[in-house]
Amino acid sequence: MLQAGLIHPASPGCYHYLPPTVRAMEKLVKAVDEEMQAVAGQKLNMPSLSSAELWRASGRWDGMGPELFRLADRHGKDYCLGPTHEEAVTELVAAQSNLSYKQLPLRLYQVTRKFRDEPKPRFGLLRSREFYMKDMYTFDASEEAALQTYELVCDAYRSLFNRLGLPFVKVRAATGSIGGTVSHEFQLPADIGEDRLVLCPAGHFAANVETLNGEQTSCPTCGEKLTQTRGIEVGHTFYLGTKYSSVSNAVFYSPENKPQLAEMGCYGLGITRILAASIEVLSTEDSIRWPSLIAPYQLCFIPPKRGSKEEEEEGATLLERVYDDLAEALPHLASDSVLDDRTQLTIGKRLKDANKLGYPYVVIAGKRVSEDPPVFEVWNQNAGEVLFLTKEGVIELLSKVQVP
Amino acid sequence: MLQAGLIHPASPGCYHYLPPTVRAMEKLVKAVDEEMQAVAGQKLNMPSLSSAELWRASGRWDGMGPELFRLADRHGKDYCLGPTHEEAVTELVAAQSNLSYKQLPLRLYQVTRKFRDEPKPRFGLLRSREFYMKDMYTFDASEEAALQTYELVCDAYRSLFNRLGLPFVKVRAATGSIGGTVSHEFQLPADIGEDRLVLCPAGHFAANVETLNGEQTSCPTCGEKLTQTRGIEVGHTFYLGTKYSSVSNAVFYSPENKPQLAEMGCYGLGITRILAASIEVLSTEDSIRWPSLIAPYQLCFIPPKRGSKEEEEEGATLLERVYDDLAEALPHLASDSVLDDRTQLTIGKRLKDANKLGYPYVVIAGKRVSEDPPVFEVWNQNAGEVLFLTKEGVIELLSKVQVP
Repeated sequence: MLQAGLIHPASPGCYHYLPPTVRAMEKLVKAVDEEMQAVAGQKLNMPSLSSAELWRASGRWDGMGPELFRLADRHGKDYCLGPTHEEAVTELVAAQSNLSYKQLPLRLYQVTRKFRDEPKPRFGLLRSREFYMKDMYTFDASEEAALQTYELVCDAYRSLFNRLGLPFVKVRAATGSIGGTVSHEFQLPADIGEDRLVLCPAGHFAANVETLNGEQTSCPTCGEKLTQTRGIEVGHTFYLGTKYSSVSNAVFYSPENKPQLAEMGCYGLGITRILAASIEVLSTEDSIRWPSLIAPYQLCFIPPKRGSKEEEEEGATLLERVYDDLAEALPHLASDSVLDDRTQLTIGKRLKDANKLGYPYVVIAGKRVSEDPPVFEVWNQNAGEVLFLTKEGVIELLSKVQVP
Repeated sequence: MLQAGLIHPASPGCYHYLPPTVRAMEKLVKAVDEEMQAVAGQKLNMPSLSSAELWRASGRWDGMGPELFRLADRHGKDYCLGPTHEEAVTELVAAQSNLSYKQLPLRLYQVTRKFRDEPKPRFGLLRSREFYMKDMYTFDASEEAALQTYELVCDAYRSLFNRLGLPFVKVRAATGSIGGTVSHEFQLPADIGEDRLVLCPAGHFAANVETLNGEQTSCPTCGEKLTQTRGIEVGHTFYLGTKYSSVSNAVFYSPENKPQLAEMGCYGLGITRILAASIEVLSTEDSIRWPSLIAPYQLCFIPPKRGSKEEEEEGATLLERVYDDLAEALPHLASDSVLDDRTQLTIGKRLKDANKLGYPYVVIAGKRVSEDPPVFEVWNQNAGEVLFLTKEGVIELLSKVQVP
């Protein structure tokens, strides 16, 4: 086995994701897929290499400046590494011949690696130069329909963050290099966050301060004093109108069989950033905590130390029986479990290691394993409590765990 | 919905993978994950941007020539886009402090996008400039152990191709720019293949002709005349020895606590190439066929044409009941089904469209739906047969379908 660890630096802002991080990411992607498919999203996959012509046509080849990684192929043709895919997806939709209004809305998304040449990569996966993003692009027949799509996708984001148990705020945001006229960010409040937010305590108003004209200290609706917080941006939504569809001539045919420009939206979720941000937001000084839904493993079993009194009393065998019964009753959890059989180490040392990886549950064959019936020590990390349970009690507790 | 289609060109050798292709790829990756985890593979994810220093140290910055996509970041530092990751993974393992022989073998793999600036990209996903590859890198304590790992991974590849129902041959191969002393390719025999193979009809010998010294016409073991065929390379295995571990000083500590260079192997599977090659190998002139395990959807339901006799006889409702019962009995298949409700089109036209996507099964409410009990027409595409079955018969047939 590789030594414990979540990421390992490869070069500035570029990381190897180690096995537990890949597990967490795959679970997160599964949950995101569920939310996107619930709003009729169709998953596709667009290339990283993106032709300069496309970006010149939209004006972003120059507009994106040094954040764009640029390269030329063996024939001297210019490309960039896609940081986002408005141009590419709009070309794809423009190439659909005779797209009818009956086929709209189109809601296309991908979960792929993106590239951005950050001036100062920092905070690990929070601001890296290679990262995974879920980006959805939507095509509607009218502004009204596009704004309905906008609300629907925002609801899907809300649902995702609720399932993850991550407190978030949706704030008004600047449209930046993407463009469009309406934009919001989904932010996780955190001291380490790079964005400054102002919030009405009664919930009437929430904005990234970069959207404000001058200083705003009270809510424009109710006059309450705005509170300030810092946030980590984990999602960003844009209503784009026809900014890109007009460049690529992405049209559909109306009921009157007239070509009309599609009304677009785009919707990003920082997949690797959500992983890092959720650890940042949930962890304590002593232990890493993941949202239970995406923890790399749900469970760690810790048998007694070699040569201990508990070992003599068959603590290891009794713990194995918990695992066997669990595997039968809850097979999806069995493959999400780890046995820490380094029995040369004390239970305390192994519990400490478990806290570095962030298991929602740790089941220990401790002192009370010699009682009749045997009692196991269960650390419910996200609730911050220790329970003493029989085998049946352990399985009942774990039957409530949700996995995507 | 996007119009039917599997891929759409973005730029030379770069493709958008459309939704059915993404579904097939995700299923293939799941099956590959199962095989890799069965040989104790740990999944990680390495960056695409790979620092020039690493490649200069191994001698491949120059050695790879114009196939390497090269770029500089905003600070003028050189990178390539990884076509393969021997250097990167060896650095990662070299950074593990005090790696013990007890932690070996290490079998690390990823499924990520790779880049190769092909002089002539062609045949769609068969030879593209961006593609998905599964690459595993193994680290063993001795040559003997490394060669055991080699056999184990070859067995996993055999198991995968058997599950996919793809006829393959394992042939001796050249080591090319990867290096090492032992190498094999897994090839799918096909006229369109770019590799020329020679095979002993009794199975004693199989090689890519590029490994032969001069012309070889008879088997070196039994003397039988060798047959020739063309093949599509879908997997490649290498025993690397210490070629890369000696560059990065990737060592482990022996039982005597002495540092020793790890013995490496590397093992590639062309994920997107397997998708394209399997369609190439299995399809007929009239219809696309996928390996059943990875077909984008298993099932297509075709209700009667609007206004037809069958519609009047409630064919659509009867077909829905098949779906409802299926969803209850085989829920995993329900989410793998499509209803083609374009009832303005004839059944024949929709069946033709279904053949372009490649459903293993098509269930039609045709003429015999008016019998008592109703009889449905089931096209078992991969077997090339049409069956006439009652609702119960349809469900019994489909209960045998395996999905990963």
